[in-house]
Amino acid sequence: MKKHKSALQENKGIEQPKMINAAGYVRKKEIAIAKYVTEIQKGNRVYLSKAITLIESTTEKHKLKANAILKECLINKNTSTRIGITGVPGVGKSTFIEAFGLHLTSLGKKVAVLAVDPSSSITKGSILGDKTRMEELVRDDNAFIRPSPSGNSLGGVARKTRETIMLCEAAGFDTIIIETVGVGQSETVVHSMVDFFLLLKLAGAGDQLQGIKRGIIEMADSIVINKADGDNLRPAELAKTEFKRALQMYPHKENGWIPKVTTCSAIKKDNINGVWKIITEYLELVKSNNSFKNRRQEQNTFWLLQTIEEQLKDNFYNHPEIAVQLIELTQKVKEELISPFDAAEQLLAIQK
Amino acid sequence: MKKHKSALQENKGIEQPKMINAAGYVRKKEIAIAKYVTEIQKGNRVYLSKAITLIESTTEKHKLKANAILKECLINKNTSTRIGITGVPGVGKSTFIEAFGLHLTSLGKKVAVLAVDPSSSITKGSILGDKTRMEELVRDDNAFIRPSPSGNSLGGVARKTRETIMLCEAAGFDTIIIETVGVGQSETVVHSMVDFFLLLKLAGAGDQLQGIKRGIIEMADSIVINKADGDNLRPAELAKTEFKRALQMYPHKENGWIPKVTTCSAIKKDNINGVWKIITEYLELVKSNNSFKNRRQEQNTFWLLQTIEEQLKDNFYNHPEIAVQLIELTQKVKEELISPFDAAEQLLAIQK
Repeated sequence: MKKHKSALQENKGIEQPKMINAAGYVRKKEIAIAKYVTEIQKGNRVYLSKAITLIESTTEKHKLKANAILKECLINKNTSTRIGITGVPGVGKSTFIEAFGLHLTSLGKKVAVLAVDPSSSITKGSILGDKTRMEELVRDDNAFIRPSPSGNSLGGVARKTRETIMLCEAAGFDTIIIETVGVGQSETVVHSMVDFFLLLKLAGAGDQLQGIKRGIIEMADSIVINKADGDNLRPAELAKTEFKRALQMYPHKENGWIPKVTTCSAIKKDNINGVWKIITEYLELVKSNNSFKNRRQEQNTFWLLQTIEEQLKDNFYNHPEIAVQLIELTQKVKEELISPFDAAEQLLAIQK
Repeated sequence: MKKHKSALQENKGIEQPKMINAAGYVRKKEIAIAKYVTEIQKGNRVYLSKAITLIESTTEKHKLKANAILKECLINKNTSTRIGITGVPGVGKSTFIEAFGLHLTSLGKKVAVLAVDPSSSITKGSILGDKTRMEELVRDDNAFIRPSPSGNSLGGVARKTRETIMLCEAAGFDTIIIETVGVGQSETVVHSMVDFFLLLKLAGAGDQLQGIKRGIIEMADSIVINKADGDNLRPAELAKTEFKRALQMYPHKENGWIPKVTTCSAIKKDNINGVWKIITEYLELVKSNNSFKNRRQEQNTFWLLQTIEEQLKDNFYNHPEIAVQLIELTQKVKEELISPFDAAEQLLAIQK
């Protein structure tokens, strides 16, 4: 036995991949993470994509690795521009984003296109999933397109997207476009992670604000009426006038910005530069009056509290006994057999 | 000793108030609560007021008593009407509520007027606090006016008001009016506890929707332009037309109701019946299509979850170590020295 052992000890020249001790293992992990960080910061898309996959993974090990990479990538100096784009299906979001993205890369920008679409996991039809819809942009070296991560909850999808923004910025993308469909709560979530929020619309008859969620108009920094070409040109101009009048009825935004309305034709690439001009005017204003920085700081704080509160709720509602009791008590509360406050106290007592 | 004891045992005819045992004490408390419940259900205002004071108390003992009374008072059969009224200061809310309340009592209604005003605890100038503003209504036997409870948080104030509604309904009040100022989040909270939400406005030049919180127009079931009298009559009519047009731009409400705009003069008691007519039309619609009942059930469920989640947050943020760390980490998150998700995890680890 003793002889054997000393023989092993002398055996230093031979690689022993299976015999790394704990410290060595940690060290190896650190090297792997450092490699990710260096490559991402060089703008290496393969590593960027791999890191995003780690963020999107549901495996605990991957999540830890993703967190470690993210921590090292936090070198954001507020030099990026984050733009949210929403609009109902059929409004031409993909065509618009392609035209808009190509315009930006032609100006020397590096553009990342992400999406928040919690429904994609159900319908399996993710926004941006069909990359053929952005054929040109996909081939552009200065553009990076990533479909919406799947997930069961909007909170989960949103968090993944929020983290992906950080990685893209670390990889040198200076303009981040986040697409979402104007249904459910997703546009509110996107609004909470962007600097500028753009609502795409079509010209329609009379009730222009129909069909989009309540409150969405109030979030918009600009309304862009797409498909303003051919026979649709005149209706689009009329819609523009009507939206302008409607927007006048809204309270002023705190940052001093007055939302702008314009038309464009994404397919003909008409007035895409006009849209970008509105955004640059906006950025000039909000950067000069400090509201850009304040909004980013508010958003960061929001995400901190949001993450905490979601986790607290998850822990509570996933408690096995609470889950069972909640169903029963909710029914009683609905029928007014018990007060909501009384029921809440009974449920809270279970966790203690 | 033995002699003494038997003497005591024989001493049955004499009252021994200080010697009640535990069971007797519980029994006495039950009698006290039963007395409250009986008197409230008889419509006794003194007991109703005392019970509301218990709800508003910060003493644990009072809270327990209040909960016990509330539990017994839960006999609501959805026969009441809960109306929220909001509008900026100066719009004439008190004058309107007085005129409106008197109109309702003249129709044989029993009216309770409550308020949600979380700011009152700071300014000490509670809404409804100055009862001289509703001189006539205050003296009306069929009206009950209660100022906004004070409290540090909107959640706390809202809960107290929500519980007070239940007590007032148990006391036979069939129409509950809840007043709030159109600032902060209070009108959202009031919206979540009423059947009908009324926005009071004044005629102004051009930008009619200015000065009120975003989203409030979308919550309104009716916009009433007050002070439509004398020289103000024409501007009020113009404002009415403009609001009507603006409301057309909004998405339809799920319950099928199209919000109505009207004018009134609370001080001259002009068209107060017109406002009530709108509300009765609304009630007819939502009761016939079941959305009244559904909304009440949704509101009850909302209050259950709301109470749970507020308590979870309270427990977390009041944890002494978390409170300290939160300040430090929020600063780091703002400055982007640490990701919001990383900071959240660090804070959540403390509670475990």
